[in-house]
Amino acid sequence: MLPHRLTRLVQLFSRLPGVGEKTAQRFALAMTSSRQLAADLSQSLEELNEFVRPCSACGNIAELDEAGAALCDVCRDHRRIPHLLCIVERVQDLMALERSGAMRGRYFVLGRLLSPLDGVGPEELPLAELRTRIVEGGVSEVIMATPTSVDGEATALFLARELEALGVTVSRIASGVPHGGDLEFADQVTLGRAIDGRRTL
Amino acid sequence: MLPHRLTRLVQLFSRLPGVGEKTAQRFALAMTSSRQLAADLSQSLEELNEFVRPCSACGNIAELDEAGAALCDVCRDHRRIPHLLCIVERVQDLMALERSGAMRGRYFVLGRLLSPLDGVGPEELPLAELRTRIVEGGVSEVIMATPTSVDGEATALFLARELEALGVTVSRIASGVPHGGDLEFADQVTLGRAIDGRRTL
Repeated sequence: MLPHRLTRLVQLFSRLPGVGEKTAQRFALAMTSSRQLAADLSQSLEELNEFVRPCSACGNIAELDEAGAALCDVCRDHRRIPHLLCIVERVQDLMALERSGAMRGRYFVLGRLLSPLDGVGPEELPLAELRTRIVEGGVSEVIMATPTSVDGEATALFLARELEALGVTVSRIASGVPHGGDLEFADQVTLGRAIDGRRTL
Repeated sequence: MLPHRLTRLVQLFSRLPGVGEKTAQRFALAMTSSRQLAADLSQSLEELNEFVRPCSACGNIAELDEAGAALCDVCRDHRRIPHLLCIVERVQDLMALERSGAMRGRYFVLGRLLSPLDGVGPEELPLAELRTRIVEGGVSEVIMATPTSVDGEATALFLARELEALGVTVSRIASGVPHGGDLEFADQVTLGRAIDGRRTL
């Protein structure tokens, strides 16, 4: 019922995360009534493809500089503690940590977690890149900030073992009842971790 | 925290209907990890701007043909009853009616409703275009399928009065308890309309 070109746009929009057929159609129709937005969006996406790359050092999002190098703001920031590296799964996790202001070192974005159920094995983790980052960057302390899920824990343990030979200190982020969280509504695993990870006052 | 070009993309995505800051950021990050999708989307939006226009006869979405004319599939369809015209607010309403298969005539998309609260007066309705459509198209029956909201009803009444001089029959879509609807949960206005609009069996 829709013109061919609009159908195509609906298909593409529906490949955005969390967007179904109905929402995609709504987006596409909004584009027909706001031609300026459609033009701006088209150009912005093109520029993104041309100038935005994963950071060559850590995998964060970076813009190409004049020399064609992609180094992100965190890696360029000279006030960061050079020997402290935080390993995260996704760029979003890195951004959450940056917002918290709690991490004063740099990062390494894995891009994926070990996941036997989804067929993701150790060979699909960027181990060589991580080793290079640690050795060449003079890193002495690694914080595993992968998610506190089963896959995240497994990945943290696996990487900790792999990095043993490099002689770096490896720690894991604390897991427990979140700030302001109600014990009554916390799940069993979280409460178990809160007790196990207790600290002397 | 995000590179300049990504921030710009987030801003543009957040202007899509129903998309907030968080979702827009999610979309933009998805674009950085799927460059093909970003390229396809950029091109598709550009083509939309170049080739998709409102139908010159009814306001539905149409693709430009070789001669540079924009006439939608419904207006091109010779099996439609030529003297029957259905007035709707939005293209989405037209599409819903088309899916139902209940409308065998053609359409006219108003684009807006009378809305005193939003400052939309009669002069902002496409009255001249509607008159031309009715006179030149040989329309003898008009169905008001504007929404059954206050603004929709007001617009339908206003248009009915305006079209009186043209000598066309004007009807209004039925309003009442929807198919499969539970009377217990229907609101008072709907129940009132269901009683008022009762039909002899």
